[in-house]
Amino acid sequence: MTSATRPYGTRGTRGSVGSQGGTGPGASDGQEAAAILERARVSVDPELRAAVDALPGPLRRIARYHFGWEHADGTPATGNAGKAIRPALVLAAAAALGGPAARAAAVRAAAAVELVHNFTLLHDDVMDRDATRRHRPTVWSVFGDADAILAGDALQALALGMLAEDPHPASTAAVARVAACVVELCAGQQVDTAMERRDPGEVALDEVLAMAEAKTGALIGCACAVGALYAGAAEEDVDALDAFGREAGLAFQLIDDVIGIWGDPRHTGKPAGADLAVRKKSLPVVAALSSGTQAAVELAALYAAPYEPADLDRTALAVEQAGGRAWAQDQAADRMSRAMSELARAIPDPESAGGLLSLAEFVTRRSN
Amino acid sequence: MTSATRPYGTRGTRGSVGSQGGTGPGASDGQEAAAILERARVSVDPELRAAVDALPGPLRRIARYHFGWEHADGTPATGNAGKAIRPALVLAAAAALGGPAARAAAVRAAAAVELVHNFTLLHDDVMDRDATRRHRPTVWSVFGDADAILAGDALQALALGMLAEDPHPASTAAVARVAACVVELCAGQQVDTAMERRDPGEVALDEVLAMAEAKTGALIGCACAVGALYAGAAEEDVDALDAFGREAGLAFQLIDDVIGIWGDPRHTGKPAGADLAVRKKSLPVVAALSSGTQAAVELAALYAAPYEPADLDRTALAVEQAGGRAWAQDQAADRMSRAMSELARAIPDPESAGGLLSLAEFVTRRSN
Repeated sequence: MTSATRPYGTRGTRGSVGSQGGTGPGASDGQEAAAILERARVSVDPELRAAVDALPGPLRRIARYHFGWEHADGTPATGNAGKAIRPALVLAAAAALGGPAARAAAVRAAAAVELVHNFTLLHDDVMDRDATRRHRPTVWSVFGDADAILAGDALQALALGMLAEDPHPASTAAVARVAACVVELCAGQQVDTAMERRDPGEVALDEVLAMAEAKTGALIGCACAVGALYAGAAEEDVDALDAFGREAGLAFQLIDDVIGIWGDPRHTGKPAGADLAVRKKSLPVVAALSSGTQAAVELAALYAAPYEPADLDRTALAVEQAGGRAWAQDQAADRMSRAMSELARAIPDPESAGGLLSLAEFVTRRSN
Repeated sequence: MTSATRPYGTRGTRGSVGSQGGTGPGASDGQEAAAILERARVSVDPELRAAVDALPGPLRRIARYHFGWEHADGTPATGNAGKAIRPALVLAAAAALGGPAARAAAVRAAAAVELVHNFTLLHDDVMDRDATRRHRPTVWSVFGDADAILAGDALQALALGMLAEDPHPASTAAVARVAACVVELCAGQQVDTAMERRDPGEVALDEVLAMAEAKTGALIGCACAVGALYAGAAEEDVDALDAFGREAGLAFQLIDDVIGIWGDPRHTGKPAGADLAVRKKSLPVVAALSSGTQAAVELAALYAAPYEPADLDRTALAVEQAGGRAWAQDQAADRMSRAMSELARAIPDPESAGGLLSLAEFVTRRSN
């Protein structure tokens, strides 16, 4: 790798990707990222709340519950609406390429991207029968499937409608980009749900990587691209920002999958090895299964049998011995390195790229 | 009513609204409408198919099945994609206000409106657990809930994205209008599904009318408004076209509800009194229940008891004796009259309004 494609070498250290907590550059970046996230929330929240509050009565109530602003009975809550990384990326990309004016102009677009993300969460939870989201019961489990589907549908319409109505010259291109991204997100989720029903041995690693890029990378890339559009960036820079976000998003997913197996329950809030217990075909598992090793044969046998808590350690060990953990960590580092290259292509000045860099490192260092 | 607000008196005859089949103006209008629908299908189908075929693999297959272009196994079908009234209304409104050039320019917008309609059908069928649509098994019953939800989500994104990318100057306003309409459709469906769980006696007629307007009238109105936008019409004419479509859509729903009780099974393809058997809170039933008559008391008792086929005739008679049928037919005629007034406001020349008029009368005279 040449220095031209990796100008932020001091921060994009391979070994540190996905490390849980600790001190050093990661910790200080985490503080910087937290400050960026907080500033983004302060900017975007009023726009987001105004959009949601414009929904008709019952849909508004469902959406407000989902965002953690209300309890199920309609009383106010000081809830947890998630880290809102995507709107922060919209604003950071706009600021990096167009300065404070572009950041200010992109606030509505940032809110629209966050609405799209939440529309997909509402629907994914219905499809995956996930009962908990952000430490609270999911919308479908409180209000029923129909309300969750309808609130999601309405949030998608709200997002694309408010983006179209934005008088900013980039608004039309942003609608087209976000709409294309939604199609990709749906395709990724479709492959994911279809994969659930397939035999683990029949799932190819390339398929799971493509699915993860569509399901997780696409919207993170889109958020960065929308920010670039709102900064009036050239098409190639918009595309580079999209690629940056996609690669960082994929790195995030790889780390998330590692945490899903080896994460510390005290940090993750989930039982140890949660993904193994539900026989999830996560990236480290599929990499392990396709390794051609003896450990892969053992893992396949364990995955084919019903889950026994006593087998958990053996299963995690088999994934590790088959090289699944090392592969995922290398892949994550490689993706982050590619992300840095794309970022450097669009924004050669590391100073300007700082916000995006901090956010990308934050999501790939997360321990919960 | 003054002649100024009802210039199309010879066609908007009260008594004929909702009449099933027969000869006279209805039959010839039906032929005219059929020709308009066929021309619209020829114009819109290529755009619609191109949009759907741009979806990624599995989503494309699900959508192509839904539209009746493919069987579930992926082999081609010469299917029934529905009457496609909404895109025909887009084109008819554009033609009425802007001539053939406006009609030609509105083809993509017409396809987008049809995509939105089909997105709502896919989701409504999941929520309502309807197993049959256009004489074929619904998508969820063939592919599962997740695929039906995702295909619907993708069709909404496709619709708004292709509308945003349309270089026509009306495109942005159309995206905003269609997005607002989707929110209204969701709100209507939300009220409808919530109503299912409520006691029939607690449901007010105004609520059901508002729900029907949101669920059925809004998109028909939106279709007409989008056509007007593409003709470059003044805002007040766009709004009048919207109101025309809403009123006609509500008339359609009233007639549909009458057919759901008294329709001839040979025409409707559904068993006689199908809506009564499932205790549907349709407009004639709620009107009957809130009539304060002795028949309303009897109807309430019948609706509170489990369905017995032997009670069907008595139940239908109770709705009729309580005035539910006459009310619905009068309301439908009244709504059609209001629709005509709105149309005359925007398009004073009956010759120019002919296509919209034929379509509106077609949907409210339908017998299946």
